[in-house]
Amino acid sequence: MFLEKIQSPADVKALDVKSLEQLAVEMRAAIIKKLSACGGHVAPNLGFVEGSIALHYVFDSPKDKIVFDVSHQSYCHKMLTGRAQAFLNEAHYGDVTGYSEPAESEHDFFMVGHTSTSVSLALGLATARDVLREAGNVIAVIGDGSLSGGEAFEGLDNAGEYATNFIVVVNDNEMSIAENHGGLYKSLADLRKTAGKSENNYFKSLGFDYKYLERGNDIASLIEVFKSVKDATRPVVVHIHTQKGRGFSFAEHDRETWHWAAPFNPETGEINWGSGESYSEILGLYLMAKIKSDPKVIVIHSAVPAGIGFHAARRKEAGKQYIDVGIAEEHAIALASGLAKGGAKPVYSTHGTFLQRTYDQISQDLCANNNPATLFVTMSGADGMNDTTHLCIFDIPMLSNIPNLVYLCPTCVEEFKVMADWAIDQTEHPVAIRIPNAVHHRSDVFEKDYSALNKFKLEHRGERVALIGLGDFYHRAVAVALELRRNGLDATLVNPRYASGVDKDMLLELAKTHDVFVTLENGVVEGGFGQKVATALSETSARVLVRGLSKEFYDKESFTDLCEKNHLMPAQIAKEVFAIIS
Amino acid sequence: MFLEKIQSPADVKALDVKSLEQLAVEMRAAIIKKLSACGGHVAPNLGFVEGSIALHYVFDSPKDKIVFDVSHQSYCHKMLTGRAQAFLNEAHYGDVTGYSEPAESEHDFFMVGHTSTSVSLALGLATARDVLREAGNVIAVIGDGSLSGGEAFEGLDNAGEYATNFIVVVNDNEMSIAENHGGLYKSLADLRKTAGKSENNYFKSLGFDYKYLERGNDIASLIEVFKSVKDATRPVVVHIHTQKGRGFSFAEHDRETWHWAAPFNPETGEINWGSGESYSEILGLYLMAKIKSDPKVIVIHSAVPAGIGFHAARRKEAGKQYIDVGIAEEHAIALASGLAKGGAKPVYSTHGTFLQRTYDQISQDLCANNNPATLFVTMSGADGMNDTTHLCIFDIPMLSNIPNLVYLCPTCVEEFKVMADWAIDQTEHPVAIRIPNAVHHRSDVFEKDYSALNKFKLEHRGERVALIGLGDFYHRAVAVALELRRNGLDATLVNPRYASGVDKDMLLELAKTHDVFVTLENGVVEGGFGQKVATALSETSARVLVRGLSKEFYDKESFTDLCEKNHLMPAQIAKEVFAIIS
Repeated sequence: MFLEKIQSPADVKALDVKSLEQLAVEMRAAIIKKLSACGGHVAPNLGFVEGSIALHYVFDSPKDKIVFDVSHQSYCHKMLTGRAQAFLNEAHYGDVTGYSEPAESEHDFFMVGHTSTSVSLALGLATARDVLREAGNVIAVIGDGSLSGGEAFEGLDNAGEYATNFIVVVNDNEMSIAENHGGLYKSLADLRKTAGKSENNYFKSLGFDYKYLERGNDIASLIEVFKSVKDATRPVVVHIHTQKGRGFSFAEHDRETWHWAAPFNPETGEINWGSGESYSEILGLYLMAKIKSDPKVIVIHSAVPAGIGFHAARRKEAGKQYIDVGIAEEHAIALASGLAKGGAKPVYSTHGTFLQRTYDQISQDLCANNNPATLFVTMSGADGMNDTTHLCIFDIPMLSNIPNLVYLCPTCVEEFKVMADWAIDQTEHPVAIRIPNAVHHRSDVFEKDYSALNKFKLEHRGERVALIGLGDFYHRAVAVALELRRNGLDATLVNPRYASGVDKDMLLELAKTHDVFVTLENGVVEGGFGQKVATALSETSARVLVRGLSKEFYDKESFTDLCEKNHLMPAQIAKEVFAIIS
Repeated sequence: MFLEKIQSPADVKALDVKSLEQLAVEMRAAIIKKLSACGGHVAPNLGFVEGSIALHYVFDSPKDKIVFDVSHQSYCHKMLTGRAQAFLNEAHYGDVTGYSEPAESEHDFFMVGHTSTSVSLALGLATARDVLREAGNVIAVIGDGSLSGGEAFEGLDNAGEYATNFIVVVNDNEMSIAENHGGLYKSLADLRKTAGKSENNYFKSLGFDYKYLERGNDIASLIEVFKSVKDATRPVVVHIHTQKGRGFSFAEHDRETWHWAAPFNPETGEINWGSGESYSEILGLYLMAKIKSDPKVIVIHSAVPAGIGFHAARRKEAGKQYIDVGIAEEHAIALASGLAKGGAKPVYSTHGTFLQRTYDQISQDLCANNNPATLFVTMSGADGMNDTTHLCIFDIPMLSNIPNLVYLCPTCVEEFKVMADWAIDQTEHPVAIRIPNAVHHRSDVFEKDYSALNKFKLEHRGERVALIGLGDFYHRAVAVALELRRNGLDATLVNPRYASGVDKDMLLELAKTHDVFVTLENGVVEGGFGQKVATALSETSARVLVRGLSKEFYDKESFTDLCEKNHLMPAQIAKEVFAIIS
């Protein structure tokens, strides 16, 4: 077995092409075996096995620096740079993250997880090399899907002006997570059809030299093309045509499903997605019903349609009322603002971590214009994705401090639906709705009208202590209330509903009879909801315990650990409350 | 005179080409006369006189919808849509804003001020038109400079996929605010040279049809080309070559200076920039000195070099240690992160309002990677730009809640310099420095090392009341202290220095002997600095007055009005303090 013996790229260089091909077979098997147990990015890595081998055969990492876009396709790079055991040995599966990670290896330069960044980051390395008069090649690897993000364009455009070594490998597998969207993809298809010869070459129009390789999964051809650009003195794009999911028939035939998969049976291709209700399916059903009942409703997505359960059949059924803009969050928000201005009812949905890319557009294009678009902020909170690069815990500070935006936080599915109905039909405000991970149900009657902004709901009037639980953390407030009641205290319970403002009247009224307030939110405390409550009460004698996550880039920490560490467990909070009031 | 009689676009359509040419002469004269008195975007509007006339001659606004990028070139559009008096009659000069404004006219669709948004916003209007089965042309106007922004690319790429009426007018005056940067500009130059025939057409590569017009200031030619695309059923780019500053010799010869000018003498071309020290010049001198003393320092800018006083001579002198990336803030941050990782010392500077475009890159590309780049956030606070679209009052909530970022707020020039020296040379943190508008000097001795994060400086220990003034509002805290002292109270004075965290030890220690804390910040309160202080003290008995601006999109309000309205006047604050403690 070759892979067992690969300690560093030097060991790759020592092999002949036939052995490298055998190595590729072993790497593919390792990927399938490990991911069948752990889940992960199956199809992207299977498509870039040969690309990774050829890069390390031709270039001299880490002197030559390879920067991966998203870095979800960097598993093979990891195997070839001293981390093979993390893919071969079950006991070491947990040794590496699913993305590039400088803490793991000198061959990794950035912690990356969002798309469209590799060109700019790599250009920084190349410019530092030139300014500091160092040597070496700099290579940015980017998928065709990631090219639709504005940051990638900005990087390519800037790089096109330099007269220096800068190599961009465009790994074209004809797919984003789902199908690609954008006029660019027609011209990429033309390039594939003409072996790179068609007119109106996007990369050349930005100043790059250009090479095309049709056989992007053929090691010998890859080695040849990479050798031809090694030590190039001008920016060059190497456009390679690869096959997403290659060598695993299930993934070859359903590349979207296998982009990222939960643990699966490698024999049957059955993926264990887990059971139980999920918000992606709830959102999918809700939005499809809206689309059917109201021709003005337009659902917008930016390349992660699974987040709203919009699988291919649903996308087809939605027809023109569904728009996937590609990985283009900035454009998605401006488009939504324009749609709302034009009289349509746009609903844009993406995960909180990706919404970060469009802060300015939310502020300027949408909120300064006060257009009534609706945003669903999915996967919110610390109980969802827990990679540093995918944390969805910064959305409350980001969104709740932008004027004009109404940020609603439903406590359960039933409340979500009435809030969404209101948001979509009203014409006064841009509205965002925070979609949690955990699915809760409540049988209460919920208000249908949220136009009286920032009115909290007093769910139960008790005494001395008021618990204010935002969104899904309302249920945590209920748990704290139970804990207090067990110790003889009947606490007041509030569902604030709005994260973008506070009900100062209610708070000051409660402050007359309550000594302690506790706020609970499933996100970072700094700049968030609880700090607004603390400020509203800061001129009274009330004590306020502001509870949420402290400002940190958490890395793969479990939700329970995070809650304990941040004093979010009901027993911890109850103890702290009694310490104050007794 | 024709212009006097233009009440609406219908009056434009009634004129023949010769009369339209006379109208253009009158409009140019009106622009020069008004702007010589009021200041404004001189050169962009002078270059788009004929374009505006021809658009309104050919299309039927507002049924046909024209969306301007940045909208700093929309003065002529305003003149032709019922607002001529605001350019002819001194008494009405103040009737219109410098940007498109839906509140002024049904011919304006969005309030716009940032670049690169028109394509996406207009595509929203076009899509709403199609979904609602309405009619009419949709036209996005965008300058060549704005094409370097990622949002424009995302919009063009998405639009290129549609089979519908969508017209993009590329107003190519061969300039951004300063010279253009990016590989794209070489291919735009090739298109100009070949009358639109060169290969590797960027717009075609994104799926657009394409027309080129060399004589972009010739009304008859413009009418002809616009007529040829009216009611087009596919997306089309009309690339027109215009002359920035046309018809005003000073502006024709120095297009950068005349992009935006303060009031000027139209006979001599002398611009009254005002006198006194400015931070742009202080930053320019500081950064040039850094560049000369340290070859690792790289100054990065995104197309607003005047913000750091980098006029053409200075840019030339800085050589390779100065990079203008074009209007590409996202890329600028990722590039800075890469430079820092590669061992250089990048300093990126832009106005706070434009930094909004790169929230995600600051979080992910820079701070999650904890690379030691330095950011200067210029024009910060409510005493600078006061157009809704250019407010620099949201930066504290935006930046101070991102983990790992150290956000420093100097109180004066001397403190700025030591903070910047520290930030640039240290290698532990990404650091942002908030550059105020008002230039203050202090003769104190300032610490050289800021690595003990979030340590406030106790400037004066008084009693009962502690005043905490952040950055330039430290001087406001001093004024409050004087006011209190006049009434017999010797207040404590704190310079917090950091906006990204609080000195909880100091606050809790002070809380033992102080009843009231007042925080003062020159930005919105929500999500900002004072709310962190209030939260740090929320479990004590101290009262905290959190003072700054309330969360709002202010529109052209004077600094004094804003301060009064937000209870920021020293006398107001002193009165409120005494109300609590007496």
